[in-house]
Amino acid sequence: MVVGVSLNPEMSTRHMGYMWVTEWISPKEAHMHGLEEVYYEGRTRYQHVLIARTQAFGDALFLDGYVQSTEADEFIYHEALVHPAMLAHPSPRRVAVIGGGEGATIREVLRYPGVERVVMVDIDGELIELAKRYLGKWHQGAFEDRRVELVLTDGRRFLEEAEPGSFDVVILDLTDPAEGTPGVMLYTEEFYRAVAGALGPEGVAVTQATSTRYNLFMYAIIRNTMARVFPHVRPYKAFIPAFLSEWGFMLASKGRDPLVDEGEVERRLPGGLRFLDAETYRCLFTLPKHVKEAMAREKRVSTDAEPATIY
Amino acid sequence: MVVGVSLNPEMSTRHMGYMWVTEWISPKEAHMHGLEEVYYEGRTRYQHVLIARTQAFGDALFLDGYVQSTEADEFIYHEALVHPAMLAHPSPRRVAVIGGGEGATIREVLRYPGVERVVMVDIDGELIELAKRYLGKWHQGAFEDRRVELVLTDGRRFLEEAEPGSFDVVILDLTDPAEGTPGVMLYTEEFYRAVAGALGPEGVAVTQATSTRYNLFMYAIIRNTMARVFPHVRPYKAFIPAFLSEWGFMLASKGRDPLVDEGEVERRLPGGLRFLDAETYRCLFTLPKHVKEAMAREKRVSTDAEPATIY
Amino acid sequence: MVVGVSLNPEMSTRHMGYMWVTEWISPKEAHMHGLEEVYYEGRTRYQHVLIARTQAFGDALFLDGYVQSTEADEFIYHEALVHPAMLAHPSPRRVAVIGGGEGATIREVLRYPGVERVVMVDIDGELIELAKRYLGKWHQGAFEDRRVELVLTDGRRFLEEAEPGSFDVVILDLTDPAEGTPGVMLYTEEFYRAVAGALGPEGVAVTQATSTRYNLFMYAIIRNTMARVFPHVRPYKAFIPAFLSEWGFMLASKGRDPLVDEGEVERRLPGGLRFLDAETYRCLFTLPKHVKEAMAREKRVSTDAEPATIY
Amino acid sequence: MVVGVSLNPEMSTRHMGYMWVTEWISPKEAHMHGLEEVYYEGRTRYQHVLIARTQAFGDALFLDGYVQSTEADEFIYHEALVHPAMLAHPSPRRVAVIGGGEGATIREVLRYPGVERVVMVDIDGELIELAKRYLGKWHQGAFEDRRVELVLTDGRRFLEEAEPGSFDVVILDLTDPAEGTPGVMLYTEEFYRAVAGALGPEGVAVTQATSTRYNLFMYAIIRNTMARVFPHVRPYKAFIPAFLSEWGFMLASKGRDPLVDEGEVERRLPGGLRFLDAETYRCLFTLPKHVKEAMAREKRVSTDAEPATIY
Repeated sequence: MVVGVSLNPEMSTRHMGYMWVTEWISPKEAHMHGLEEVYYEGRTRYQHVLIARTQAFGDALFLDGYVQSTEADEFIYHEALVHPAMLAHPSPRRVAVIGGGEGATIREVLRYPGVERVVMVDIDGELIELAKRYLGKWHQGAFEDRRVELVLTDGRRFLEEAEPGSFDVVILDLTDPAEGTPGVMLYTEEFYRAVAGALGPEGVAVTQATSTRYNLFMYAIIRNTMARVFPHVRPYKAFIPAFLSEWGFMLASKGRDPLVDEGEVERRLPGGLRFLDAETYRCLFTLPKHVKEAMAREKRVSTDAEPATIY
Repeated sequence: MVVGVSLNPEMSTRHMGYMWVTEWISPKEAHMHGLEEVYYEGRTRYQHVLIARTQAFGDALFLDGYVQSTEADEFIYHEALVHPAMLAHPSPRRVAVIGGGEGATIREVLRYPGVERVVMVDIDGELIELAKRYLGKWHQGAFEDRRVELVLTDGRRFLEEAEPGSFDVVILDLTDPAEGTPGVMLYTEEFYRAVAGALGPEGVAVTQATSTRYNLFMYAIIRNTMARVFPHVRPYKAFIPAFLSEWGFMLASKGRDPLVDEGEVERRLPGGLRFLDAETYRCLFTLPKHVKEAMAREKRVSTDAEPATIY
Repeated sequence: MVVGVSLNPEMSTRHMGYMWVTEWISPKEAHMHGLEEVYYEGRTRYQHVLIARTQAFGDALFLDGYVQSTEADEFIYHEALVHPAMLAHPSPRRVAVIGGGEGATIREVLRYPGVERVVMVDIDGELIELAKRYLGKWHQGAFEDRRVELVLTDGRRFLEEAEPGSFDVVILDLTDPAEGTPGVMLYTEEFYRAVAGALGPEGVAVTQATSTRYNLFMYAIIRNTMARVFPHVRPYKAFIPAFLSEWGFMLASKGRDPLVDEGEVERRLPGGLRFLDAETYRCLFTLPKHVKEAMAREKRVSTDAEPATIY
Repeated sequence: MVVGVSLNPEMSTRHMGYMWVTEWISPKEAHMHGLEEVYYEGRTRYQHVLIARTQAFGDALFLDGYVQSTEADEFIYHEALVHPAMLAHPSPRRVAVIGGGEGATIREVLRYPGVERVVMVDIDGELIELAKRYLGKWHQGAFEDRRVELVLTDGRRFLEEAEPGSFDVVILDLTDPAEGTPGVMLYTEEFYRAVAGALGPEGVAVTQATSTRYNLFMYAIIRNTMARVFPHVRPYKAFIPAFLSEWGFMLASKGRDPLVDEGEVERRLPGGLRFLDAETYRCLFTLPKHVKEAMAREKRVSTDAEPATIY
């Protein structure tokens, strides 16, 4: 009002957050993260990068305004992304990771003593440098492992030009196929043909596959598209708190059914995991009834000519 | 800037939401719901009520600024709350529902033909009237079922004064134990003794049990507290999109282990469900490794003398 | 974080607002109004209407997400809009108000005993009915004054079809010329020709003229456009708290210079005003140096063929 | 909704701001600034500092979550703060500036060729270093002027210990007297006695005096408090867009009436100003009727024993 009044002390605004990241899920829905400290803010050649400490999730990496992973729950995302694919292949030795700039994806891959070579391909070398500097809680030194080879190039071109059959597992740790972004071309049938070509006969691929909540159509399209190329495709999901969603993943195999039995999981799952155990593994692959039904209705695929996108 | 400029047409603010509900998870984290239409806004004797259409979740009920359930996903919450308890009892005929003003909890209970009597106890008669008028998508006429008896009183007193052994299942569809609210006294050991007293020898109780993400300590305390009273307690969870969380529930039984086998689930689960099937049922009870470990560390219980609360 | 912690009691979110109107000044600037109570929310044929009590400004009317006037400061806006025009004309008897649905503009006009007839023209009859019902603090019964005639039609057509010279003062209490809205055609040269036509030889017109802060270019364009039609044009401004801005107005006259001397202001200003006195009157017409300079650089006008707009 | 849909391209969230500063005016009102770039974020010993480019106001300095000044309108604030005091003294040679870390206050003081010595006193040396580095648009090299002496100490102690009569003008460019902050003790009667003691017989003091909108009570209290010490006190105000308010200032003099006539303003006002000219100067001192009336009702003063504060 025009004339000020003494407010109740309880009404103090002092503990209310004033630095925020607003993640727009749509123009009419958002998740607001109060920031405690900004470690880095700037643009690489490819994207806007914000590395900051949030009140709710600890340190967090945001790309173009969307959270990529957080200190509080990155282990859920990265364990869910990596281990089902590693278990799906009988004996993975050669692994390619496309994306995954934080270094946590390769960290999980390196837990397997049988792994001989990990090629990490990321187009954004500046982001990798920032990750090395600010995201030690994520990579935990993984970039220094002698088995890791870092290639700074476009992931699609890398796979298209790779020697056929040169990998056992390809892990696609990508940004979403948002309209107008280059990521769109990393979810098409032609792209998955390149992935399959780079894999050996028992090869396994996995991709993050957007939200099963607000982009369920895209999740289904990714399933449909991979199924054009791979004989076995298994959708799965894990609840990632910072993503506000049961997040989608898609597991595809050129050889056996990638969903392995509990005994094999128990035997082969490496130590040191925080999220995943054999019981949880099995339930990743259990989609709620309404999700299964909605996916059954979606028939579209994504192609280079008509790529599917989200906003 | 001081001198206006012609903005890019793409910069129009016209499609951006302007009516919002901000759910404060903490003073430094929030979920923002853009509203399309306000159906009702006002205060009952007990709480502030907002019934509105959100862009992301369809129609939604907010109490004191927090979403209670939404058109888009209330079926997940209500199926997850009701059916595990109904299945845990060998033959539930007499059911008490404490809270559950929307009428969707009784809707799920009424799916069981063996149910003879459902007593719904809610302190807020004004809210019930609002639900009858505005939340038809929720109750779907359940309030009119001849088996339903509505009692407008305090839920705790109702159970304390109930004839011993008068119910087979008690369903606690409550608001959170937020500090300073009466709900706090519906999560204490003394309260659960009243629940157990009202149940027969094979009696089953279930309660919503706050978020497994941002109130995990409370979830564990509810487990600990129920375990003081009931021989069997099973924590479980379901991802509820509008709650941004795998939401916690706690299932307790005076008779058998409330987690039943898949065959019984298949046989007894009623038709018409959208979220739950036998496969999903099993995975409700599978908690991620880090949740299990964190819960194992929490030893506190909630009592009338020292009730546990959240903010 | 994943494991909940007991927060400091001071961190309670209970006093933080949860119902908000966000006024987007641009996609990257906003004013957020916490709502205490919603009196009315809905759409008329022409616009979205929200009438609510805000914490900071008391009752408020929002159209299409933008505040039109508030209990706390509507007197500033309406006194600033009406009295300079009434004083500019030597003896106003016949007044037309275009827009002004709240009824506060006519309330101010009716303070002058010499006024014989006030024609209020608004296209949105539903809004008028809502104002009559909910905005009594604004109109204070003005709609019932026997001198007032309400015409529900398009304001531009009304003026185009009015008998030439039938008004002494025309008050344009309009929504902003936002791109894509009909209001755009109420700020063009052709429109002002219709205004001038409806005025007698000493006729005076005044219009709200957008923000001198974030739409200063438009303010200058309105000045330029009126100056094509009227021999005298005087820009002025008043600080309106709820608009976060020194708000622009434009005063035009077919007869004498509309800026009158202090003696005449003292003599003719009616009683009962809260904002305006002779000293303040003079300073309304004093624009800061940088505003004057910026306006001097703007040469555009708005025409039906090329109407100027804001976003 | 649970099943994703292809949104309208116009619904893209890409141009919506995602890094924000929320200025809480109260827990139920806020101003949101979208950030384009973060230049510096951190804490000095005394306060949290954010220097960033906002979309609406260009570069901006925020202290503890509140905007101090912005590239777009700092000239209004600093010209309004400095020049009335400089004009009020017949021949200011020795000037003390308390606060004013950006360096823009001394920049304005240095425009007067008669000024021989400017002592700038700020407790926060780290902030000064940040200003030197990041706020060149503000200080424009003023820190390097040989007439400027920087003293890093508590402003109150500095004035209490200053040689009596050692300054002609004292400019108080302070943070608000927010409850619980040290700034509170820079608005009390005892403090103003120290100011007066440090001034010569024709000495002039000016202070920023909070918002005439949302802290009008405080503005009046500052007037009342200064009037206990100084024979002449003149309230004035200027509209500062980034403060969303006609901002309050208080001008006090030990000698003549500090409001000088237009001729003297014309003659003495230095060149290079952007906001202030003689006409605008006069209107700074013209308060709206309702502000004058509200101020007349406020009788309190602020003392060390009972300091007045805002929240």
